[in-house]
Amino acid sequence: MLRQKATAIAVATLGRGLLEITRPVGAWVAGLGAQAGLVTLFIRHTSASLLIQENAAPEVRADLDRFFARLVPDGDPIFRHRDEGVDDMPAHVRSALTAVQLSIPVADGRMSLGTWQGIYVWEHRLEPHRREIALHFIGE
Amino acid sequence: MLRQKATAIAVATLGRGLLEITRPVGAWVAGLGAQAGLVTLFIRHTSASLLIQENAAPEVRADLDRFFARLVPDGDPIFRHRDEGVDDMPAHVRSALTAVQLSIPVADGRMSLGTWQGIYVWEHRLEPHRREIALHFIGE
Amino acid sequence: MLRQKATAIAVATLGRGLLEITRPVGAWVAGLGAQAGLVTLFIRHTSASLLIQENAAPEVRADLDRFFARLVPDGDPIFRHRDEGVDDMPAHVRSALTAVQLSIPVADGRMSLGTWQGIYVWEHRLEPHRREIALHFIGE
Repeated sequence: MLRQKATAIAVATLGRGLLEITRPVGAWVAGLGAQAGLVTLFIRHTSASLLIQENAAPEVRADLDRFFARLVPDGDPIFRHRDEGVDDMPAHVRSALTAVQLSIPVADGRMSLGTWQGIYVWEHRLEPHRREIALHFIGE
Repeated sequence: MLRQKATAIAVATLGRGLLEITRPVGAWVAGLGAQAGLVTLFIRHTSASLLIQENAAPEVRADLDRFFARLVPDGDPIFRHRDEGVDDMPAHVRSALTAVQLSIPVADGRMSLGTWQGIYVWEHRLEPHRREIALHFIGE
Repeated sequence: MLRQKATAIAVATLGRGLLEITRPVGAWVAGLGAQAGLVTLFIRHTSASLLIQENAAPEVRADLDRFFARLVPDGDPIFRHRDEGVDDMPAHVRSALTAVQLSIPVADGRMSLGTWQGIYVWEHRLEPHRREIALHFIGE
């Protein structure tokens, strides 16, 4: 019998960088006692993203940050929007270049992530922030 | 009782830039009389995108356009595909770098957007175009 | 009557570049005998992506590859993660810049793709790989 369920989780980021949330999302899915379906994550912000990335080598996360810091430099003179500082507009651009939402099939009671895939919140602002992620499940 | 519903909306863009569609999408969701579920938007084009972005400061939209114009320059000599002009291939690249689809949870009868989030069609071509977005809702 | 169905397909990529999968996905959707719903594709890797792109001009695919090779160069000295070679970390960055998941509405028994839209697996590694894509359908 198909049914749906929703919740929201909040995470406290530590400033710019990746924060893994595979465990809390997986725990919520496991708690539903569902066998199969689709789980959707939606981040309710425009200066942080959701990312599926390699969960093994920590250098991957450092390299991602280094690449994006060069691609979208803080304080770039082409940006006029600086209400909240030099990292304000770069955070919006990084958000546009990455994902605000992810949907992941659930099979055998858990998310069908690949062996090396982890789910991350990517904080694009330099300072720590509280970020809220809406979760939705539909399935049985 | 779970049910689904689908429609399509068409928007007339004004040439390159962001066009907000939060209102027509929200109106369609409200008209369903549903309490909870998941709404999916899918743009049926490869030279325009869907974007969730800051809906307060208009400079954010101008800065986004300026950044992408520098990142993917019109008339870049590395592009061979120019069937429809110097902005043809850059539009495809911009489309690959951004989103063709968005799924947003619905709670209490409306989309769970953050306070500052708006939904936009991002026209990547210089000229105005008619863009079609397929909408799907599942929920109750 | 709403119902769901899931499967997984595997594709053998030929090394870096786009490989069209519109046909096998469309065949699976057609075989469900469903009229309307939502199909979700999720790639179970962090060095290959899913992409909706122009399916007419082959130059578009070559230009996409050329643009991304310049944007995220193999062997870039800012990358420290090189466990699997000079294209290892660039593949993760390309994956972060593109999509790991796509949801496409189904109407009249088939995916609501635009006239020129095809679905592709984008292999970001130089060597051929076996890539697995989880498919999920919900609808009726």
